[in-house]
Amino acid sequence: MEKLPKLFCPSSVAVIGASNNFGKLGYHVMKSLVEGKYQGEIYPINPRGQEIWSIRAYASIEDVPGEVELAIVAVPAQLALRVLEECGRKSVKGVVLITAGFRELEDPGGAALQEEIREVAARWSLPIIGPNTFGFVNLPFSLNASFTSEFSLLEKGGVALVSQSGGFSHLCGFRSFDQRVGFSKIVGLGNRCNVDFPEMVDYLANDPDTQVIALYIEGMDEPRRLLEAAKRAKKPIIAYKAGRSERGDDASRFHTGSLAGNYRIYQGAFRQAGILEVSDTEELLDVAKALDNLPPLGGNRVAVLSSQAGPGMIACDAAEAQGLTLPSFTPGTQDRINELLPPLAIRTNPVDMGPAWYSPEVTVGIVAAVEQDSNVDGILFLATYASANLALMKTMRDYLKDRKSLKPRLEKPLIACFAAPPAIWWEEIWAMDKEGVVVLPTPERAARAMGALWRMRQLKLAE
Amino acid sequence: MEKLPKLFCPSSVAVIGASNNFGKLGYHVMKSLVEGKYQGEIYPINPRGQEIWSIRAYASIEDVPGEVELAIVAVPAQLALRVLEECGRKSVKGVVLITAGFRELEDPGGAALQEEIREVAARWSLPIIGPNTFGFVNLPFSLNASFTSEFSLLEKGGVALVSQSGGFSHLCGFRSFDQRVGFSKIVGLGNRCNVDFPEMVDYLANDPDTQVIALYIEGMDEPRRLLEAAKRAKKPIIAYKAGRSERGDDASRFHTGSLAGNYRIYQGAFRQAGILEVSDTEELLDVAKALDNLPPLGGNRVAVLSSQAGPGMIACDAAEAQGLTLPSFTPGTQDRINELLPPLAIRTNPVDMGPAWYSPEVTVGIVAAVEQDSNVDGILFLATYASANLALMKTMRDYLKDRKSLKPRLEKPLIACFAAPPAIWWEEIWAMDKEGVVVLPTPERAARAMGALWRMRQLKLAE
Repeated sequence: MEKLPKLFCPSSVAVIGASNNFGKLGYHVMKSLVEGKYQGEIYPINPRGQEIWSIRAYASIEDVPGEVELAIVAVPAQLALRVLEECGRKSVKGVVLITAGFRELEDPGGAALQEEIREVAARWSLPIIGPNTFGFVNLPFSLNASFTSEFSLLEKGGVALVSQSGGFSHLCGFRSFDQRVGFSKIVGLGNRCNVDFPEMVDYLANDPDTQVIALYIEGMDEPRRLLEAAKRAKKPIIAYKAGRSERGDDASRFHTGSLAGNYRIYQGAFRQAGILEVSDTEELLDVAKALDNLPPLGGNRVAVLSSQAGPGMIACDAAEAQGLTLPSFTPGTQDRINELLPPLAIRTNPVDMGPAWYSPEVTVGIVAAVEQDSNVDGILFLATYASANLALMKTMRDYLKDRKSLKPRLEKPLIACFAAPPAIWWEEIWAMDKEGVVVLPTPERAARAMGALWRMRQLKLAE
Repeated sequence: MEKLPKLFCPSSVAVIGASNNFGKLGYHVMKSLVEGKYQGEIYPINPRGQEIWSIRAYASIEDVPGEVELAIVAVPAQLALRVLEECGRKSVKGVVLITAGFRELEDPGGAALQEEIREVAARWSLPIIGPNTFGFVNLPFSLNASFTSEFSLLEKGGVALVSQSGGFSHLCGFRSFDQRVGFSKIVGLGNRCNVDFPEMVDYLANDPDTQVIALYIEGMDEPRRLLEAAKRAKKPIIAYKAGRSERGDDASRFHTGSLAGNYRIYQGAFRQAGILEVSDTEELLDVAKALDNLPPLGGNRVAVLSSQAGPGMIACDAAEAQGLTLPSFTPGTQDRINELLPPLAIRTNPVDMGPAWYSPEVTVGIVAAVEQDSNVDGILFLATYASANLALMKTMRDYLKDRKSLKPRLEKPLIACFAAPPAIWWEEIWAMDKEGVVVLPTPERAARAMGALWRMRQLKLAE
């Protein structure tokens, strides 16, 4: 597995089964590499083609004059063994085997063929992503080794998603355009011939581009190995376990050839290994974004500061449901708030900043005071922006931008929930997102993300 | 309360406290009326102004030559009583009292002033929305009687939101731009001087533009009256109860002057009255959208049809957690699916249509067969679209559009979860939304919306 860094960051890539025909996966893999602006050498391999995607093609990988570090294979299953032998002889460092038709089939011939693949790979010490995968994307390296060119459009960030389902990878990736999560890598493990979750966790634990590891798991053959890798890793790991229901479990067996197994056992194992469980696609993305962009939550004492009372109340409900508490402020902070806010609304935690609607300085003054309060571990800040309070948004934006350069640096997470109509407002709001704070669209999601930081903290304390 | 139809659909509106000064609420109310293209007469009222928003102003509402049906009042609290007397003498049919500073104050003078307001209103038989409200928007009538001009940008549809919190109304309204919910009205009740939830439910039950009534409740003085109104109404009602936690409950009392009260009691009462409870902002919007656009779910037997196995498995997990079941298909349907799909993947419910990736006709054939299956009450259809399968999207769009004109009409809900990268894809996808089907962004949210249809069905059966 020492070849994995070369597999994910190769200096040259061959596409075996490359094609100019839109109906072939090899067409889309070429599109991903070219449109994704991969900077290394690209070698299309196709027995017939002279040029594919305007790049010189070769009949076999063994005809390529230079070295090939990564081979992406999209040929029919019956050709896979021969192609892998060629890859071995060519000394490639790793393979993405997109081809399907192995262990996921009802026909036992599929599993037998996958076993042969595994043996050839072992003989040549070839790490294989797949088979039965869409591939992977390595965003900081501008390498889209998948059949989905749109993965190159994803935002770069510190989240690595490792998934047993290509469908889930696409769902998460595409959903992240709205949720504004930045990825280092998205990797589809497919049938996990010899690169499985533990190998990926070990690799990503040492990947400088990755800050958070997110796993989508249907079923595993050797869960213990994952747990050991997770304990070794010094980065936050979150996991979404599918196949929790009876029908889902049946489906999992067909899909990836593994029994999904008893969900309770997975839950216990995740806890032991310090893996934070999530149970919803959007939650996975929100929590990954929060872990990637915020400091750890030191305790469970949260301040709710809301420009409108209703959303503040909702945040309280959701925060308490997460095991968070709303402490009283220290007398100094409370005095400061009482100076700033008239007694028109609730001034204790949760603070209703409604009366400060037209006074951006008051809002920012309260946030600044509460952030310094020793009774407070994290802040939920909620505001609704429309044409009447544009000034508040601008002042808040400036405060949040300046906040990054505070000395000493504030090591408390601030999660903001902003609601605004479309058009210019959202550009202004997104300009604040991930600048040391995280923006989420509802009070409940903001509170749940804060709750996840707290659960992660508890897992780490228990280790 | 027989004046409520005039209050919500007035032929003329006076804005008392209208202003040309951006810092005043009366400026923003004028902006909402003018930019919202209200078709009736607008009378700005301001002792100083000759013209406000280029419209002739009057010093008092009593100086207006014609009739005034609705008065929107945005003056300081100490002037409110005098202004209401003037409104009474002018025979207005209803008032939106935006002014704050009444029962929501800690100072008992606030509650006393509100009681005086109530007495004046009773004397003149004046229904009052507020005080302490942003107002309301009546979208099919192009009347934005609020201080937030952006409410005019909301999509028109059958959902009426009645909210005790202006912040929540703004949150929901602005969030709906993403969630694509269509509204008939959004009404901020504020302190509920004499128009409270029961009055609104009675009015909306007879409002031809409203198909679904959504309530955001913090606390009520007379919950029984709401339950009676809910039982009378022949439209689906959903409710979100805030102030469920200890801190949230405290905050509620300050915010609207009502004790939020014991959450369990509300839960039981909702169930008795056939009101479906929701517990999350996005869920409220998803469920309202589903109820507004789909036929009732006749039973709890759901088919999961997924272009990718992983999201299908997630939908199964989420559906079972909602009390939905995944039945076997009738032999006829199963035979048809076996004809259409090769044995490469799971062909029973949940159907993995992965092998049909490049064959739009197969996908559509399966959906059409399953929709006719007598074992199936509702359908969750999941698909991920990217450049490789544009054809599938187009064929599916055509199928869903044609589906509306099927004879006999299909009375089974279909909820679709589509994931796609930005740009053109989403325009194509949204072109399908609410055309007899509802599109939601994740399998979990699709399954939860289907679960809500089932809970609503059970509530109706229990009545």
